[in-house]
Amino acid sequence: MTIKAVVFDAYGTLYDIQSVAAVTEQAFPGHGEIITQVWRIKQLEYSWLRSLMRRYADFSVITRDSLAYTLRVLGLKHDAGAFERIMDKYLHLDLYPDAAAALAAMRGRKLAILSNGSTAMLNALVQNSGLGHVLDATLSIDSQQIFKPAPEAYSLIESNLGIRPAEVLFVSSNPWDACGAKAFGLNVAWIERVTPEAMALACVTNDLVAPLTMFKAIRTQMDELGLEPDYRIHALSELPALVAVHEP
Amino acid sequence: MTIKAVVFDAYGTLYDIQSVAAVTEQAFPGHGEIITQVWRIKQLEYSWLRSLMRRYADFSVITRDSLAYTLRVLGLKHDAGAFERIMDKYLHLDLYPDAAAALAAMRGRKLAILSNGSTAMLNALVQNSGLGHVLDATLSIDSQQIFKPAPEAYSLIESNLGIRPAEVLFVSSNPWDACGAKAFGLNVAWIERVTPEAMALACVTNDLVAPLTMFKAIRTQMDELGLEPDYRIHALSELPALVAVHEP
Repeated sequence: MTIKAVVFDAYGTLYDIQSVAAVTEQAFPGHGEIITQVWRIKQLEYSWLRSLMRRYADFSVITRDSLAYTLRVLGLKHDAGAFERIMDKYLHLDLYPDAAAALAAMRGRKLAILSNGSTAMLNALVQNSGLGHVLDATLSIDSQQIFKPAPEAYSLIESNLGIRPAEVLFVSSNPWDACGAKAFGLNVAWIERVTPEAMALACVTNDLVAPLTMFKAIRTQMDELGLEPDYRIHALSELPALVAVHEP
Repeated sequence: MTIKAVVFDAYGTLYDIQSVAAVTEQAFPGHGEIITQVWRIKQLEYSWLRSLMRRYADFSVITRDSLAYTLRVLGLKHDAGAFERIMDKYLHLDLYPDAAAALAAMRGRKLAILSNGSTAMLNALVQNSGLGHVLDATLSIDSQQIFKPAPEAYSLIESNLGIRPAEVLFVSSNPWDACGAKAFGLNVAWIERVTPEAMALACVTNDLVAPLTMFKAIRTQMDELGLEPDYRIHALSELPALVAVHEP
């Protein structure tokens, strides 16, 4: 196998979406973590539901709607200012600490983002995090009006970069995204940031289940979708060595 | 408006899927509730993800896979017997107490189920609950190889019953299903079994959030998908009066 391009998911893979918890906690003390977890579940659900219903709305709309849902269900009163401060964090998410170095080390390949985020959201995020100069392309599924894991989304890699799926390594920490990319025919490295052993231990301690930990677990553990990623890594920092084996 | 047919979602609408908690609690004492909630989240996710990935598997496969996922993530060891006992409950779910009487009271209309369940699962469920004699049809999305809320699923009502969407009342307690049916053009009655006030109170008590309650909340509260059901009812028992207003 030759890897000519390494393409990254954005939210949860290069960018730490859990970093919004600091902002939600500041706005709603004691509720930061639960807001973050429920918001993410609903954000994903809405992207899939709208895709299936053929009622596409871009990811900024879905992100707002899912945050509104979360605050409503929790019964948390808020003003427009607090809402906008939380939303703004989505344009200033923290990069994972090893992201910039990993990208820099793979500069010999085409490097790109393929994300469910809208074009405007992704451009802001890339600019604010200083990744603009290392990326060859930032691809939003906007142009296809359907979200990952639909094959139309992954097809944007070949149509934009001109590189066949068999020569692309797709990197995601989102289990459903890794499965979708694999189903499409890309080579896939899934980032397992929390091991099953650590997660099971955190979920069930002293015979008690920690439901808040379960909320996290259902986003970090590999799904049962009848698909396996090609590579299971634990951090972005493992990528340069993995890619180096497959000369372009 | 004339209502010529009343079509019901099965899981969560006529049949109480929370009734599996008794069986999961028996198999895994102390974990019955969290298993039930996580299982349902993953069951729904897998139906939507497989639809988008164009890798359809029927609902019995998805229900098994999502249960396997749940027990794995929780680190709960189990033998095949325990697994099968839990799965079997899905063929013997409890009817909501007011279901049979509500159906009987509307016998002048065509009555049907339209469900994501497989044909085999639904036939077993209908037979085991004694609803066979009051239903004119039990429609599985099996034949379409795509799950609700895709329009192809809701189109089965007209193709099987010969009744136009404008003359159908679709009934679901699942917010995403109510929205999908509305997007398709059906008249929709959404069953709000837990009021927002009660849910917010249960979620946030004494300034503490109850994450296990949140798991339930994200399945029972109306979603933010830009759609509104035509009717918001609180129990199946309200249906006969609602339908009676719209003579066939």
